[in-house]
Amino acid sequence: MEPTGAAAVIIGNEVLTAKVVDANGPHLIRRLREVGIPLRSLEIVPDEVDVIVEAVARARMRARYVFTSGGIGPTHDDVTVRAVALAMGRKVVRLPEMVALIRQKAVDTLTAEALRLADAPEGAVLIAQPGSWYPVLTVGDVFLLPGVPQLFRSQLDAVLARLRGTPVYLRVLYLNQGESAVAAVLDRVALDMPHVAIGSYPMFDRTLDYVVKVTVESEDTAAVETAMLRLQAGLPVGSVVRTE
Amino acid sequence: MEPTGAAAVIIGNEVLTAKVVDANGPHLIRRLREVGIPLRSLEIVPDEVDVIVEAVARARMRARYVFTSGGIGPTHDDVTVRAVALAMGRKVVRLPEMVALIRQKAVDTLTAEALRLADAPEGAVLIAQPGSWYPVLTVGDVFLLPGVPQLFRSQLDAVLARLRGTPVYLRVLYLNQGESAVAAVLDRVALDMPHVAIGSYPMFDRTLDYVVKVTVESEDTAAVETAMLRLQAGLPVGSVVRTE
Repeated sequence: MEPTGAAAVIIGNEVLTAKVVDANGPHLIRRLREVGIPLRSLEIVPDEVDVIVEAVARARMRARYVFTSGGIGPTHDDVTVRAVALAMGRKVVRLPEMVALIRQKAVDTLTAEALRLADAPEGAVLIAQPGSWYPVLTVGDVFLLPGVPQLFRSQLDAVLARLRGTPVYLRVLYLNQGESAVAAVLDRVALDMPHVAIGSYPMFDRTLDYVVKVTVESEDTAAVETAMLRLQAGLPVGSVVRTE
Repeated sequence: MEPTGAAAVIIGNEVLTAKVVDANGPHLIRRLREVGIPLRSLEIVPDEVDVIVEAVARARMRARYVFTSGGIGPTHDDVTVRAVALAMGRKVVRLPEMVALIRQKAVDTLTAEALRLADAPEGAVLIAQPGSWYPVLTVGDVFLLPGVPQLFRSQLDAVLARLRGTPVYLRVLYLNQGESAVAAVLDRVALDMPHVAIGSYPMFDRTLDYVVKVTVESEDTAAVETAMLRLQAGLPVGSVVRTE
């Protein structure tokens, strides 16, 4: 079976060493949910070629679309292009169209290092970005986004405009009884209806009028409603505070 | 060589589907940095046994200490104990001391499902937590922390109080020239001093008086100072706005 959905690889020593809090992962998660592309996994790895190679290869096994964040640039710690190329068994080549863009942009200040931005895995395609000279670098279904949050967001928008997702239908039950008291019925319905994702989240906030939040979701609206009916029939009488 | 440092596995469909923003990953990153335990990687995976098994096995290859977050509880989506046991080649057993704690806590409301909280990989050790009846579940150097942020934090404190880290010495250079102009000298020092981690972060905020932040760090203070001197000698004249 061909993999579906997306997987993310966040490349960032600065994140793992607590110098910055990663904003790109949470943003990507939210945007993928909005467009209805399921996210299979998200991995934060250091700026080390071999670790990135493995993470990208794994992401490609798990998901159709792979998003990387960071490690794009002209310095020694920018190793994402090389790692993605290795993970895909491709050479790194210099893209003439990118060289032209960089020469145009950096007329007076062109250095040998600046031209490293034109390096890409062989077969890479540039997606033009409205409002920016800098295109999105893509290879197959791998999207190499920059780590700087403003750039990450605008490039992600350019990518997502081209992908098609399937919206997920979500319903929620709020319960006034703990997980131990409701686990048996949740288990039964989850087991009988494997295509409906049922999540159970205990809350430890006494200001709420519920102690467990149960989520029921699927692309199949009818299946979600059937699961809701089965849950409501099986849960202890009076335990459902409300549904959404 | 024995692995050092830590690796994290966040188990959470709710995070990957954007129902909640993960707070435990960022908190763990910050706390590990404070105590001086380097974090090798952080992976967010769904509540699926096989994916968690792989992630935990990988984390154990990469790092000495493994922290998991989430999937601890009595419902069908709580599969962390089983996955960690599989990743470590151990059976799941019921811990008599945990059964006793649960019976004591849930005198009137004890269900068969509640007792699932007493299941653990064989050889597990419980670390008592001040101020809570619920101990930290550990197996070897794997710490199975709950996903609820309040519980995650207090359990993490109990664990970190027992581990020893090595503080990292960090210095920073703020530069008024772009990465392309300074990449050559950064590369040279990074290549010559592989035990000093040099990071380069472009900033795209015109309200700042610098455009690139360079971090220089190591457990070896003298090596960091040597790298700082070499960088300052090699960087373009007048490009260093200030150092920290």
